[in-house]
Amino acid sequence: MSEVETITYPIERLQEFSTRVFLHFGVPEDDARLAAEVLASSDLRGIDSHGVARLHCYFDMLSLGRINPKPELKILRESASTATVDGDNGLGLVVGPKANEIAMDKAGEAGTGWVSVSNTNHYGIAGYYPLKALEKDLIGWSMTNTTKLVAPLWGAERMLGTNPIAIAFPGKEEPPIVIDMATCAAAYGKIEIAKRKGEKLPEGWAVDSEGHHTDDPEAMIEGGGLLPLGSNRERGGHKGYGLALMVDVLCCVLSGANWGPYAPPFAVRQYVPEKQVGKGIGHFFGAMRIDAFIDPDEFKMQIDAYRRELLATKPAPGTNGPLVPGDPEREAEAIRSKEGIPLVMPVVEELRDISKQIGIPLE
Amino acid sequence: MSEVETITYPIERLQEFSTRVFLHFGVPEDDARLAAEVLASSDLRGIDSHGVARLHCYFDMLSLGRINPKPELKILRESASTATVDGDNGLGLVVGPKANEIAMDKAGEAGTGWVSVSNTNHYGIAGYYPLKALEKDLIGWSMTNTTKLVAPLWGAERMLGTNPIAIAFPGKEEPPIVIDMATCAAAYGKIEIAKRKGEKLPEGWAVDSEGHHTDDPEAMIEGGGLLPLGSNRERGGHKGYGLALMVDVLCCVLSGANWGPYAPPFAVRQYVPEKQVGKGIGHFFGAMRIDAFIDPDEFKMQIDAYRRELLATKPAPGTNGPLVPGDPEREAEAIRSKEGIPLVMPVVEELRDISKQIGIPLE
Repeated sequence: MSEVETITYPIERLQEFSTRVFLHFGVPEDDARLAAEVLASSDLRGIDSHGVARLHCYFDMLSLGRINPKPELKILRESASTATVDGDNGLGLVVGPKANEIAMDKAGEAGTGWVSVSNTNHYGIAGYYPLKALEKDLIGWSMTNTTKLVAPLWGAERMLGTNPIAIAFPGKEEPPIVIDMATCAAAYGKIEIAKRKGEKLPEGWAVDSEGHHTDDPEAMIEGGGLLPLGSNRERGGHKGYGLALMVDVLCCVLSGANWGPYAPPFAVRQYVPEKQVGKGIGHFFGAMRIDAFIDPDEFKMQIDAYRRELLATKPAPGTNGPLVPGDPEREAEAIRSKEGIPLVMPVVEELRDISKQIGIPLE
Repeated sequence: MSEVETITYPIERLQEFSTRVFLHFGVPEDDARLAAEVLASSDLRGIDSHGVARLHCYFDMLSLGRINPKPELKILRESASTATVDGDNGLGLVVGPKANEIAMDKAGEAGTGWVSVSNTNHYGIAGYYPLKALEKDLIGWSMTNTTKLVAPLWGAERMLGTNPIAIAFPGKEEPPIVIDMATCAAAYGKIEIAKRKGEKLPEGWAVDSEGHHTDDPEAMIEGGGLLPLGSNRERGGHKGYGLALMVDVLCCVLSGANWGPYAPPFAVRQYVPEKQVGKGIGHFFGAMRIDAFIDPDEFKMQIDAYRRELLATKPAPGTNGPLVPGDPEREAEAIRSKEGIPLVMPVVEELRDISKQIGIPLE
């Protein structure tokens, strides 16, 4: 990693920059701060692909008027524990947190709350939302669909997004367990990195445009697809495909958004489907009150015990043993909140380009 | 397959036999019929491992008094959309359907219902429960933990069950989408089959007792572990591990059951953990009223369209293209409900042994 040139910025600087970029497009101040907070949470947690590295995409979409800077969320339907929200084509970074709030409010009354969202856009890291639920002592769920990238098992074309699932469980004395995972075998960003470095892909990541498994990053990028978690039939690729489909139905079919190959693109350079089967992309949020099931202290003590048990597992050779999901990201946050966010030069250049175009200082 | 000797039984015969076996142990008639129905649904759907092939396990556990034939379910806590149920150490085949009913009833009032269950035992196929929800036009979820078999990524010992997730979505003119998947790469039954045939395991299925990946079925069986979905770090083994953990927390930590390595065994020959951290194993059920989110007709028409889209995907070489989850099982059911259930001789022998021991005719 050391050969990659980076510039390190304090998170406050990046967050302020993002906020001002959103404000520039007429995003109301509270919403702009919220959107910047979601991006910052990704940069802090070491998920470099979903933080300010994507600010230029949001910038482009706002510049072209393809995202509504001042959405008014509408509840289309609701019950004691559910709501369906139309995000009015707003930033997912704004619509997502607000819809997540509705799920948490519902849980307060009904024990759980479940919100399916249409007419929205990319919402940052899936893990942000259950982290917000943790602040209220709730078990939070979050899912979203994304632009198509994944070929279903036995398919030779992209039909599904990378459709992540996130959920988090609080501990008492120990940190929480935070699960945040795309339902494909490997992230698209890893294909791009392999291409840049001239490396071959590991087996099980991708197919080419004919549906053959391929180790050539270019072959995936040029009309191929990512493979679902499990990769092939033998190792359970039908399971990753099933999970991606589950996420898509809960986010899109349940809300009236564009599912599967009809998901609109996140970036202006991406393919725009000719047909629409709903509005925008979709999210799905859940919130569960622990005390609606069990004494929260009892729950948290067991989570602590579970964590200790996992960390005490006999390690596989060449490893330090299993990690607890969410720990690497929490450790990254502890470091980066003090030492700042190291951005690779292509990202710095993108931010500088924004800065130059709209006169908001970065440095 | 043709070289394997089988005897084919009408499903009615097997279901009647199972019912009478349960009755023999004092299981009340309605419960005995229910338990036999869950087993039959597995045999009909071609999931041979979870039907009457397991009747001898239930028989053993009931014979030894390790399962309560007459459980009285207790609701320990509830809210508008949730309940926590103590299964009174009953058959999971009885406790599961009853807890699932509670989830469905809750959905009627609150839009969704979510039930976590402790003090229960093996509940058959996870997919049975969302199929029952489909009958009431609900989206059903089901999860359970199981005896430890899976090594977490970077672990060298079994810590987690095969912890399945099932969910189903109804179509309008087309059949439903039914997802039912364990969160490990390959089923334990496949390891046993490879051992019997003297075959090596594919890469990505298992580790030995030192945590090395192994292609030797014996090495997995003798103190090794199954690998989570994704298999290794590169292909997302941490994701399958995270899913298994999620299932375990929802089923066990939320209900007060035995999580992770403390899950009690399903069969008498299996290892019994020395320590308990809760009661029995755990299940988790969910039910969602579609009309609490969207017009059910609209939802179902989109599910139909989604199905057609998936089936029209360009096929990968050497395949007929992607399947829709649940279709192979539905096709098996159409055939087997007419032609009967082909049982391999070891299963027939087990049923004959039960028949001989308690004087209930099989043939």
